[in-house]
Amino acid sequence: MAYRYEIRLSGSGGQGLILMGIILAEAIGIYDGKYVAQTQSYGPEARGGSSKSEVIVSDEEIDYPKAMSVDLLLAMNQKSCDEFYPDLKPEGLLIVDSTFVIQVPTPKAFQISFTRIAREKFKREVVANIIALGALSQLTPVVSAKAIESAVLARVPKGTEKLNRDALRAGRSAAKKAKEAWMTLGAPLEIPKEDLLDSY
Amino acid sequence: MAYRYEIRLSGSGGQGLILMGIILAEAIGIYDGKYVAQTQSYGPEARGGSSKSEVIVSDEEIDYPKAMSVDLLLAMNQKSCDEFYPDLKPEGLLIVDSTFVIQVPTPKAFQISFTRIAREKFKREVVANIIALGALSQLTPVVSAKAIESAVLARVPKGTEKLNRDALRAGRSAAKKAKEAWMTLGAPLEIPKEDLLDSY
Repeated sequence: MAYRYEIRLSGSGGQGLILMGIILAEAIGIYDGKYVAQTQSYGPEARGGSSKSEVIVSDEEIDYPKAMSVDLLLAMNQKSCDEFYPDLKPEGLLIVDSTFVIQVPTPKAFQISFTRIAREKFKREVVANIIALGALSQLTPVVSAKAIESAVLARVPKGTEKLNRDALRAGRSAAKKAKEAWMTLGAPLEIPKEDLLDSY
Repeated sequence: MAYRYEIRLSGSGGQGLILMGIILAEAIGIYDGKYVAQTQSYGPEARGGSSKSEVIVSDEEIDYPKAMSVDLLLAMNQKSCDEFYPDLKPEGLLIVDSTFVIQVPTPKAFQISFTRIAREKFKREVVANIIALGALSQLTPVVSAKAIESAVLARVPKGTEKLNRDALRAGRSAAKKAKEAWMTLGAPLEIPKEDLLDSY
């Protein structure tokens, strides 16, 4: 049977989830050479509601491009975490932005303060999505760090390449620490603020 | 049975088809309040190949977000016109950018020089996709001109609002002329260059 890996990126409207989905899809499809379908859905409730973007990866052409049973859920706010966690497979990977997700539904989640890092390290909240992409490339083998970097640099506005490359690296570094803590202690921990600021 | 309307936007990599798909989906889903799913797909052949973006519209939640039988095909280059025309329903609507599509597979197609208008009227080839969105809102009732304008203005970079609003209007105006010619003469005609430049 064909390999299929389902990613859902979720949060609120202004968090850049669509761009994230496109970059991730391009990284995997164009730079890593797999089959990818990337989808956004809107309903009548879309105005001001939560936003989601899905990326489906396969080793063959994707007939059904909608997530059914999610392998990786990124939740950038509490509402989307509550709403979409039930769709995550039992062995699935949950990554939350701990700036906004306070009640985490499983101790197995990776909790990283994407937005806080964006604010404090870069003074630019808009790069939180790029930091999250960096973390994602560290936490899942479905996309390589190199492909993510190529795809980010191809999509971001000219003149912001350094900012975005640094944001990616900060995300990878924060994820690496979260992973090490998880391996040492048996569960991922929130990373102390000091570590984040010194992390690369 | 539920209403379902399938739109495929196609062309080459740099023509802004993904942004077009997102704007169109947001216009229909957020501003016009219907159910919409918007998809991009990539395969191992994606590098440098043709690009497509799909928007599915329904009056109920969309279970299968991939186009099967296309109601509206926009082809921004010859290759995508050749490749995707067979998926268009017999009664479907074909709109081509006649700057690049020379061999049109049916006399019922609307042929409008989106890229030529962008170059000659705006000196900015990048707005060809926005001109095409304007034309689309004139040629299909699936999206309103008002919703398209709101969605475009919400997505384009700050400072480019006037350019993009003018591009939308130029597209609507060119489409109106193409429609009038079609109604008068029984078939859509290529619009003379002079008319395009005076069109609004």
